Amino acid sequence: MKIYDVENFPNPLRVRIALAEKNATDKVEFVAVDLLNGEHRTEAFLAKNPLAGVPVLELDDGTYIAECTAITEYIDSSFAGPSLTGVEAKERAVINMMQKRAESMVLDAVASYFHHATDGLGPALETYQNVAWGEKQGEKARQGFVYFNTVLANSAYVAGENFSVADITLYAGLVFAGFAKIAIPSELSHLIAWQQKVSQRPSIAA
Amino acid sequence: MKIYDVENFPNPLRVRIALAEKNATDKVEFVAVDLLNGEHRTEAFLAKNPLAGVPVLELDDGTYIAECTAITEYIDSSFAGPSLTGVEAKERAVINMMQKRAESMVLDAVASYFHHATDGLGPALETYQNVAWGEKQGEKARQGFVYFNTVLANSAYVAGENFSVADITLYAGLVFAGFAKIAIPSELSHLIAWQQKVSQRPSIAA
Repeated sequence: MKIYDVENFPNPLRVRIALAEKNATDKVEFVAVDLLNGEHRTEAFLAKNPLAGVPVLELDDGTYIAECTAITEYIDSSFAGPSLTGVEAKERAVINMMQKRAESMVLDAVASYFHHATDGLGPALETYQNVAWGEKQGEKARQGFVYFNTVLANSAYVAGENFSVADITLYAGLVFAGFAKIAIPSELSHLIAWQQKVSQRPSIAA
Repeated sequence: MKIYDVENFPNPLRVRIALAEKNATDKVEFVAVDLLNGEHRTEAFLAKNPLAGVPVLELDDGTYIAECTAITEYIDSSFAGPSLTGVEAKERAVINMMQKRAESMVLDAVASYFHHATDGLGPALETYQNVAWGEKQGEKARQGFVYFNTVLANSAYVAGENFSVADITLYAGLVFAGFAKIAIPSELSHLIAWQQKVSQRPSIAA
């Protein structure tokens, strides 16, 4: 399989961490997308993903899978090792819900702040900006930090006692927040301790 | 299990259709949330779902599951009958991706249009509106209609030859679009034919 992505971008990071957790990074061919020069908006790339986002997974039969929730679940079920998406129905439901919250409350909110309330990727790529919307989403991200701090006061990981895709998504959201200069308040000690702990996993620290 | 929801609202509709597809509607107790009077923003409801959204599934052990993707997957795996989320890894990935597209390109875009560019649920509930953002999301929904028309020109259902949660999500998105008065252009014949076909399923027509 191939992955079309941009190294160090937040959503590609989610897939790369998932692959590393499954010890499968070397099973995949990475193809760099020149997003900063607009390659993701070319006809060739839009045929892979009409939403113009990275990453995109190409299966060996030529099927393209976009959207990180889909890609990481596919990776999780394709390689051996501890499950990242859960096994039992209830566990899977909690992980699914908490991953969605990590997206909407943090990662997607930070992305909207970055693309609308800052220079983002620059005027050539940021063709529509709504500053008030971006600022509102920055506030939402800060509220998301508070929510996850409360969650992590009561459990080792975002969706319970085991590391999961929900942790990967929140971690990528905090990386993006750092890049976009949305600070995590120092009093959110549970969130900060969890971030520190996750950053030391071999899938991330290596 | 219990479902806290508002009958006829778009996201509750997704869960109700999924239950009906599994012939499991009578296995669930529905609890009406008085959303129009702000019950979803009370402390008691926020303890069930901090994002204040409906529906919320309560399992028999007291666990609350929010987010339709999580609830419908739980329902799908809990009751017998044809799978709505797929069985094989690739099929599951395609359904996951297409459901996400139905959310972001149609259902969520329509919701943003409704809550920001129209009166939405009225001034007591719509405490932040950004009209320009809402209009932009209305445009996005119209582009989403065109995308899904193309998809449905080539396959019987949104994620391939079988009905799935991706169809449920798009169908709910079109119901919401109708309510929000975003018209589907008559030339999008594949989308309109699919909508007509899906509306006649026993899970919806009954």
